[in-house]
Amino acid sequence: MSTATKMHAIGFNRSLIIEDEYSLISFEEAYPTMRELDVIVKVSAVSVNPADAKVRIRSALETTLESPRIIGFDAVGEVVSVGPGVTDFSVADRVYFAGDASRQGSNAEYQVVDSRIIALAPAKLSDAQAAVLPLTSLTACEALFERLRISKTETGKTLLIIGGAGGVGSIATQIAKHFTELTVITTASRAESISWARKMGADHVADHRDLINSVKQLGFETVDYIFNTADTIGHWDAMAELIAPQGMICSIVEFEGSVDLNKLQGKSAGFVWELMFTKSSFNTPDIKSQGEILKEIAGLMDSGHLTTTLTETLYGLSEDTLKSAHKKIESGATVGKIAIQY
Amino acid sequence: MSTATKMHAIGFNRSLIIEDEYSLISFEEAYPTMRELDVIVKVSAVSVNPADAKVRIRSALETTLESPRIIGFDAVGEVVSVGPGVTDFSVADRVYFAGDASRQGSNAEYQVVDSRIIALAPAKLSDAQAAVLPLTSLTACEALFERLRISKTETGKTLLIIGGAGGVGSIATQIAKHFTELTVITTASRAESISWARKMGADHVADHRDLINSVKQLGFETVDYIFNTADTIGHWDAMAELIAPQGMICSIVEFEGSVDLNKLQGKSAGFVWELMFTKSSFNTPDIKSQGEILKEIAGLMDSGHLTTTLTETLYGLSEDTLKSAHKKIESGATVGKIAIQY
Repeated sequence: MSTATKMHAIGFNRSLIIEDEYSLISFEEAYPTMRELDVIVKVSAVSVNPADAKVRIRSALETTLESPRIIGFDAVGEVVSVGPGVTDFSVADRVYFAGDASRQGSNAEYQVVDSRIIALAPAKLSDAQAAVLPLTSLTACEALFERLRISKTETGKTLLIIGGAGGVGSIATQIAKHFTELTVITTASRAESISWARKMGADHVADHRDLINSVKQLGFETVDYIFNTADTIGHWDAMAELIAPQGMICSIVEFEGSVDLNKLQGKSAGFVWELMFTKSSFNTPDIKSQGEILKEIAGLMDSGHLTTTLTETLYGLSEDTLKSAHKKIESGATVGKIAIQY
Repeated sequence: MSTATKMHAIGFNRSLIIEDEYSLISFEEAYPTMRELDVIVKVSAVSVNPADAKVRIRSALETTLESPRIIGFDAVGEVVSVGPGVTDFSVADRVYFAGDASRQGSNAEYQVVDSRIIALAPAKLSDAQAAVLPLTSLTACEALFERLRISKTETGKTLLIIGGAGGVGSIATQIAKHFTELTVITTASRAESISWARKMGADHVADHRDLINSVKQLGFETVDYIFNTADTIGHWDAMAELIAPQGMICSIVEFEGSVDLNKLQGKSAGFVWELMFTKSSFNTPDIKSQGEILKEIAGLMDSGHLTTTLTETLYGLSEDTLKSAHKKIESGATVGKIAIQY
């Protein structure tokens, strides 16, 4: 148990563009308190996801919060305290997790997290290599196996991942190729991202700037599953055209305005959301599946069946480091994932 | 093989309100021709579904068709010819089916239909009793087990069927109660339809005029699955509120305009269409599943595990009979199903 009563943290109390001096601020926060199933972790590395920037921007605060919000989802760290109901983890365990959007985040010295959504970090990976995995792996596994309900045994089907070089697209490609017999088409448009998407295991790379023609030119009239990690509304018409009869589309990107769902009717096709925070937000009966997914991913990283998607490491828990990471993420051009080693 | 060269049929060549003298017309049509996997059936009874009225109305013809469109989907009849590739059926078999929206329909003396989407009719049911089953049973089975992917073994979950007294709602309730352990809530608002919904096996009946409160008053904060057979856009907000985290909504009713899909995002919920004609329209690899579903339903009808949803029988293949049935269907107040015995 730490004897700290205060800790250093980075967060925001107003929604501001990242270039603003006060978009992310440094402050002292009370040391976290635990509930029965929680652990407290001394954070050693985190990653920055598009979700971090979205929460910062979309909170759209009109007034200044009394106490700042700490963001940061992905984290790796050492358990320093365990709640009375925790049986799976002990002090000094090195764990990794993607946290819970309703609680304070990982951009702090210490973080409290529900033990059901954590796992031992991959032993053979550095903190930075492991820190980039939880949010994207959980998102990818839930999207493929729980939302799209892709069977690990079905053969002869195709999956189109829109945004193949991003954090989620990169690990989703690896996971799909490892667990399934699917033909995986991802999208990328720049030489660097095309090369990365191939490295992640994509069978084919299409160009999302001309998605329909690009997929058809690869020899596919339709695809059985679509996982959109990029722009939902911008790709709606293309997804509706490319999806196979009885196919399913999953997206993690909300859109502005309404969509014409009728476009999917003739094909008996569907659309389903994946949001990694649903299980923790609603404390669903299957919340523990997040810990189990992370445990399985850690095993596959250690055995070399999957590889980290880390492409860049920044150093230090500071406003400057986090602002730099948010800027890169907001550019939308990141290949793979950015970690911050504290 | 029939020696007929012409046959009597009812159809339309302009989209008109049902009260119009020419909304449905009687005419002579060429005797149908077969493809390799087809059979020709001498039709003895049909039913009228909302799909019949929709096709008649929504064709929205600006000009008069050269030859009229024969509608009618559900049918029972006797096989009079079999195509060279047909091995499962013989002349004189009594079959039932829901047909294919891209071919001429069952409102005729003879109809040609793909043998992969037909089955022997339930032996213990009259023609009228059997004729009301194919379209609704196929829709219900596909919606529950292929679109919503309800597992026949899962327990402790709830299904809300909006439109519990209609044709699809009635058989869907029976099928859900027979095959699954789901708690089934259906909706109805009139004494007659509430009583019918209970007879179909609903565990609870809610009032769709105040859906959210009505379901909550039954003790359910959320439901795991929603099958909407009534008004999609009118119930969108209620469905979004009532669906459980990670739940799925299926609908068979297209809507005017666009919807706000973002409402489902926080729950990682989804929406999927069921259209019974998808398999035949696209000649999907699983098209034969329609014949298999009808075979299973016939067996369950004969063994008394399911009962026909027939509530009214009209007589004769005539413009008057069909206009009368279309009028009733368009009222939206039909309980169960209407058959026409030729």
